[in-house]
Amino acid sequence: MAHLLAMAIIEKFPDVKLGIGPVIENGFYYDFALPAEALGEGGVKLSELEKKIKELIKKNLEFKKDSVTAKEAKEIFKSQPYKLELINELEEKKEKITIYKSGDFIDLCAGPHVESAKEINPKAFKLTKSAGAYWKGSEKNPMLTRIYGLAFETEQELEDYLKMLAEAEKRDHRKIGAELDLFTFSPLVGSGLPLWTPKGTIIREELNNYVWKLREEKGYQRVTIPHITKKDLYETSGHWAKFSDELFKIETREGKTYCLKPMNCPHHTQIYAHLPRSYKDLPQRYAETTMVYRDEQSGELGGLMRVISITQDDAHVFCRMSQIKQEFFAIWEIIDKFYKTFDFKLRARLSFHDPEQMGKYLGTPEIWKKAEAEIKEIAEHMKADYFIGIGEAAMYGPKLDFMATDAIGREHQVATIQLDMNMPERFDLTCINEEGQKERIVMLHCAIMGSIERFSAVLIEHLAGHFPLWLSPVQVKILNVGEAHLSYAKEILAMLVENGFRAEISSDDSIGKRIRGAKLQKTPYILVVGDKEVENKTVNVDHYKRGQEGEISTEDLFKKLVTEIKERK
Amino acid sequence: MAHLLAMAIIEKFPDVKLGIGPVIENGFYYDFALPAEALGEGGVKLSELEKKIKELIKKNLEFKKDSVTAKEAKEIFKSQPYKLELINELEEKKEKITIYKSGDFIDLCAGPHVESAKEINPKAFKLTKSAGAYWKGSEKNPMLTRIYGLAFETEQELEDYLKMLAEAEKRDHRKIGAELDLFTFSPLVGSGLPLWTPKGTIIREELNNYVWKLREEKGYQRVTIPHITKKDLYETSGHWAKFSDELFKIETREGKTYCLKPMNCPHHTQIYAHLPRSYKDLPQRYAETTMVYRDEQSGELGGLMRVISITQDDAHVFCRMSQIKQEFFAIWEIIDKFYKTFDFKLRARLSFHDPEQMGKYLGTPEIWKKAEAEIKEIAEHMKADYFIGIGEAAMYGPKLDFMATDAIGREHQVATIQLDMNMPERFDLTCINEEGQKERIVMLHCAIMGSIERFSAVLIEHLAGHFPLWLSPVQVKILNVGEAHLSYAKEILAMLVENGFRAEISSDDSIGKRIRGAKLQKTPYILVVGDKEVENKTVNVDHYKRGQEGEISTEDLFKKLVTEIKERK
Repeated sequence: MAHLLAMAIIEKFPDVKLGIGPVIENGFYYDFALPAEALGEGGVKLSELEKKIKELIKKNLEFKKDSVTAKEAKEIFKSQPYKLELINELEEKKEKITIYKSGDFIDLCAGPHVESAKEINPKAFKLTKSAGAYWKGSEKNPMLTRIYGLAFETEQELEDYLKMLAEAEKRDHRKIGAELDLFTFSPLVGSGLPLWTPKGTIIREELNNYVWKLREEKGYQRVTIPHITKKDLYETSGHWAKFSDELFKIETREGKTYCLKPMNCPHHTQIYAHLPRSYKDLPQRYAETTMVYRDEQSGELGGLMRVISITQDDAHVFCRMSQIKQEFFAIWEIIDKFYKTFDFKLRARLSFHDPEQMGKYLGTPEIWKKAEAEIKEIAEHMKADYFIGIGEAAMYGPKLDFMATDAIGREHQVATIQLDMNMPERFDLTCINEEGQKERIVMLHCAIMGSIERFSAVLIEHLAGHFPLWLSPVQVKILNVGEAHLSYAKEILAMLVENGFRAEISSDDSIGKRIRGAKLQKTPYILVVGDKEVENKTVNVDHYKRGQEGEISTEDLFKKLVTEIKERK
Repeated sequence: MAHLLAMAIIEKFPDVKLGIGPVIENGFYYDFALPAEALGEGGVKLSELEKKIKELIKKNLEFKKDSVTAKEAKEIFKSQPYKLELINELEEKKEKITIYKSGDFIDLCAGPHVESAKEINPKAFKLTKSAGAYWKGSEKNPMLTRIYGLAFETEQELEDYLKMLAEAEKRDHRKIGAELDLFTFSPLVGSGLPLWTPKGTIIREELNNYVWKLREEKGYQRVTIPHITKKDLYETSGHWAKFSDELFKIETREGKTYCLKPMNCPHHTQIYAHLPRSYKDLPQRYAETTMVYRDEQSGELGGLMRVISITQDDAHVFCRMSQIKQEFFAIWEIIDKFYKTFDFKLRARLSFHDPEQMGKYLGTPEIWKKAEAEIKEIAEHMKADYFIGIGEAAMYGPKLDFMATDAIGREHQVATIQLDMNMPERFDLTCINEEGQKERIVMLHCAIMGSIERFSAVLIEHLAGHFPLWLSPVQVKILNVGEAHLSYAKEILAMLVENGFRAEISSDDSIGKRIRGAKLQKTPYILVVGDKEVENKTVNVDHYKRGQEGEISTEDLFKKLVTEIKERK
């Protein structure tokens, strides 16, 4: 597809200089050095290029691969400076140089490709947009024009994907977050640093309380640490050497160097280590929801998906080798229960180390093999839907990462359980065992939501902002039809608030406007009260999922609310 | 007393060089340049100096004041280099120079003093300790020897004070904190950065939940902010200019300057300001318990009393001028209720600005006068026990600071309510009023505990570690007399845990040792279960305040616990 796009562009702009044209998820792109305003209004439209590509497909062009020497390649691409740059690099690295020919067009390309344009479905592709992109991603290089395209096997797949994109745009958490007033950003504070409003904070707190409840049942205890530390802690943990780029560093007025914590494990080891521990005290399970900070590049920040201040629902288990499995299972149960509550489908990635990049990791190959074998056994035992991701491990050990599929089919990395045999070595963490001997312990790292910011973004888009009752910032909106029904509305409000429900009265504006307003705010329960309701001691329920439910008694309403919250429906 | 101490020292060390000898709370000190090991083991003992002072008192020496010129003063103190330095400074500042004569001894001194040693009670003073102290407090100067003394009018007062000191030492929160395992420090993390254990975190959370409950009843809402910000926020707020020394600054890899927040108000203004507000939406009351960071000098850090990472139970009210009083009253009610729970006695300090140091403050004298008048009216209306503290105001406005007297008579600064007419100007905070016009609003800052670290230290010492039931990390300890009673103990444990109580079984060791252990841990309820209790379905209660309460039914126990927690007794 990329080659065909290049051919279509060359026909319109014979002097075009070509960049690269790789495959990406669900499609491809190609970078071109084009004259200003070559595309778009007044220039060539993407639809014209699509038409041209369809003509090329009909010609049943073949894609023929050939190996060439660097010299031959330089001759072929003598008028293409970007290609020449790539050829020089390949030559330096002594890599094989291959080209693909299709009709008159020759491209420098490793392939592989379809053999003939016959294999391409002319109805299953679409050019989606053009955007500026620096050559090789560096600001120092010229800006090229990148044209993006989608390509599938069937027209249906393309349509489904376009529908999904349109749906994703509607569900964009930045848009819904503003509509429901959940969070905001301030130019004075900076991007990547969300400020959570009262409504957004309710959602954060409810999510966090739920995770804590699930953990408390499994014997976790909460601890509290400061957000900074002397750099000594990270020198011992190894983060100073391996993670230094992303660390926020602070010089004190006395000339000491502190760091803003990018993770919580090193601090938590110090709580474990401040007392001698007997094997009888293990496992120690410390949970803490707290912010960590990473010096991300500002170009990478966007809404809540990627932030500088990341609230982790973090926990660390300090246990014996023999307790690893039971602890993994307990955490897995929490994760299963939590994600089932929102109807997310989960699969597990076994994130293992890349043996060819041992410099990225702490510890010996033996420790890694042992830890990874353990994790694989656990996944097998859980009969989990899993796959292995080489090179996805943490610095200190392999991970079990969970991927959740949302309502429109996108997969997000969420929860994680990590096995760590390196930190306990570096901090010399031990317990006294049955024989009165010091025994090296292991650490598990786990997060259920991962980052509350990112999980909130995923959840908002998954639910399209329709939070279940227990999570809704305003659970019940009471609308009095007229002035005469206001005091009855207040009675109901008092009853609800007293019982811990988040309820409000709305009494300005016409009743129609107020119903629409409450619906735009995605309020689960809208209660209308007029003459009949006052007389019968009832409320008229309009439920955001189930629709009109009509008149019910206040007792029945109360029961419904209690049950729905308890069941987290 | 300081003069008499100097005379006693001169008698022992005629060549001594004298520093200064001021009055301090409950006594005095004097700094001397003495030979090494002049005092203590092998040298002169404090008791010898005390004896000498008593002899001097008996001589009924007079203390006579005289004014001298700088020239005369330099002649008198020609062999005293530190005094000469002080005389030069007085001369430069063109200040009056006065001396005091008593017997042969002449000291450079502003006074005032008793007229004669007759007025001094020889049984009501005590020299308490000697310690090194740099001349003028600077490391660049020579180290002198400082001798501290106490002085009261009556022997009884001295005895009471010494008793209080001994009691304070027993209650030292660092000692009790370690015994009850509430918090710890790590040399890798640094001083002033406490790590809170599971038990300490329970106390923090319970205290914080209580404050939140009191606030929720008054219409507060929680918000959430990150711990860092671009410096732009503090340039606008004025903190960058006025507070820069204590700010922790961070340079990002992209060369931006961030700060670790030293307070929360500027962030909270950005939540207020992100939407246009109608007068109908006011007051907006934002509460958040979160850590702030101040670059304190390491010499000033000690236990939890002064830390670098300060957890504030902070709140900000954004309201109209006409709403200030009602909001102050509401906060004052919360403060009263909270401190009454622990039997603290409170008085209020009206912390006003110092008109002679306007450079320390934001805003005009008119704004300050108006704000201070408002606060005085509020204190009058509350019929409060109050006093005025000139120069104690915050940068942005006057404060109402609350001072709590603890169980052994010490006064601690705790809660605060602050009126701020300056931040709203700087951030241009407004609401739309009844006339559709923009109206400038005001801000209140308030904290109930102030710093959770400092308040925890005060509370531990106030209660000597005997936390009330609702605050105790372990509320109930169940001790089975023998192996045969363990399953019954477990039944009781299950019943308690299911109902949300923090209970544990202790079954190792002899019953005597276990009772002593539970008492050392200051566990409120110790339940012993043996044959009789198993048979009668009862427990034998030993209460940490009320002592042996004997056998009671499990139902009665349950009722007692519920009531005591509800009443926070």
